[in-house]
Amino acid sequence: MRIAVLGTGSVGRALAGRLAGLGHEVTVGTRDVRATMARDEPDAVGNPPFRTWLESTAGVTVATMADATTGAEVVVNATSGAASLDALAAAGEDNLAGTIVLDVANALDASGGMPPALSVSNTDSLAERIQRRFPTARVVKALNTMNAAVMVDPSRVGGGDHTVFLSGDDAGAKAVVRDLLTTFGWSDIIDLGDITTARGPEMLLPLWLRLFSTLGTPVLQFKVVR
Amino acid sequence: MRIAVLGTGSVGRALAGRLAGLGHEVTVGTRDVRATMARDEPDAVGNPPFRTWLESTAGVTVATMADATTGAEVVVNATSGAASLDALAAAGEDNLAGTIVLDVANALDASGGMPPALSVSNTDSLAERIQRRFPTARVVKALNTMNAAVMVDPSRVGGGDHTVFLSGDDAGAKAVVRDLLTTFGWSDIIDLGDITTARGPEMLLPLWLRLFSTLGTPVLQFKVVR
Repeated sequence: MRIAVLGTGSVGRALAGRLAGLGHEVTVGTRDVRATMARDEPDAVGNPPFRTWLESTAGVTVATMADATTGAEVVVNATSGAASLDALAAAGEDNLAGTIVLDVANALDASGGMPPALSVSNTDSLAERIQRRFPTARVVKALNTMNAAVMVDPSRVGGGDHTVFLSGDDAGAKAVVRDLLTTFGWSDIIDLGDITTARGPEMLLPLWLRLFSTLGTPVLQFKVVR
Repeated sequence: MRIAVLGTGSVGRALAGRLAGLGHEVTVGTRDVRATMARDEPDAVGNPPFRTWLESTAGVTVATMADATTGAEVVVNATSGAASLDALAAAGEDNLAGTIVLDVANALDASGGMPPALSVSNTDSLAERIQRRFPTARVVKALNTMNAAVMVDPSRVGGGDHTVFLSGDDAGAKAVVRDLLTTFGWSDIIDLGDITTARGPEMLLPLWLRLFSTLGTPVLQFKVVR
């Protein structure tokens, strides 16, 4: 498939690299290609410069948000939650019409201190905001409840014996995302229901952040035991 | 130990019965003893009348919130989240001074429809509200992330291989609660930190409610895989 991954951070890189490795045609979307490629310092969380990563990753190209998204069958929103609506607007409403938008972002808000709270929760969610803003996109929420390395390789923790959630209004879009997750190695995939069910997985983040702190590792995951 | 369990619903009954079975001296607190004992119809969720349950449960007595709490070493808040502050106020601020308050409640708010949202979340929690309202109480949040039957017998799901969380400012109170949980059969007990960390487990409820609906059973639990 032709896939756009919006976002050049840890999450975007993990997903783009894995998808390309699986044979998909992957373009990473960024606001300013020249600026992104010109950076020669590690980013805020210590990732090597994007260009360094790109040069060492086969099968991935970089383009503007709009160029990356044009003709893509799946658009992955791997931007920060605060930037997601702007990034998707830059991708272009026409480009998103009928397109699967896999939203893996979290609406973290550190303005009140650490650990971050959520800027939207409880009676709304980032996924719902995206779906409302782009009503013809086929938004699916998934993978937001874990570290990037675990997203693309669930065997990284507990032999892969844990759970990923799907939320979305479009059954066909969820089926495509389910297939992608299966190729990543996921087996316990729970479809929670429509896009409003994304509130639950998004509201897992505060617990995840505390567990990261308490356990001293981001390589942790939730399993729904039943 | 002498333990007060505030609340006569499924959660209060499960905890009171289990604690009495373990040899503790248990009194269930209710607002109006006469009214509680006079009911002869099943409650809103189909539990038998309280008196029927009480008569078949050895070692449990019933009293007003204040009488149940007087002299108790541990007070379990098993009331609904909306009623919790009033119930604890009825128990009496003096009775709660220095006392361990095990808060298992959830601040569910169905005023906007089903499934319920939370009436407090994200930047605050029910446990924090209780701790602020009763600053000399030693509040510990635990057990709110599961069905009552699983709280008191974790082996009911997945052979007990799943996780319960502790949050609270008082290390001694958390140690007492940890010991109680161990006697219930809990082995994977994660101390998240101070009382503000209760936001995480409280924010699990929206996901739990959706899973209950999707999986068709409330006998489900979260395991932190690491």
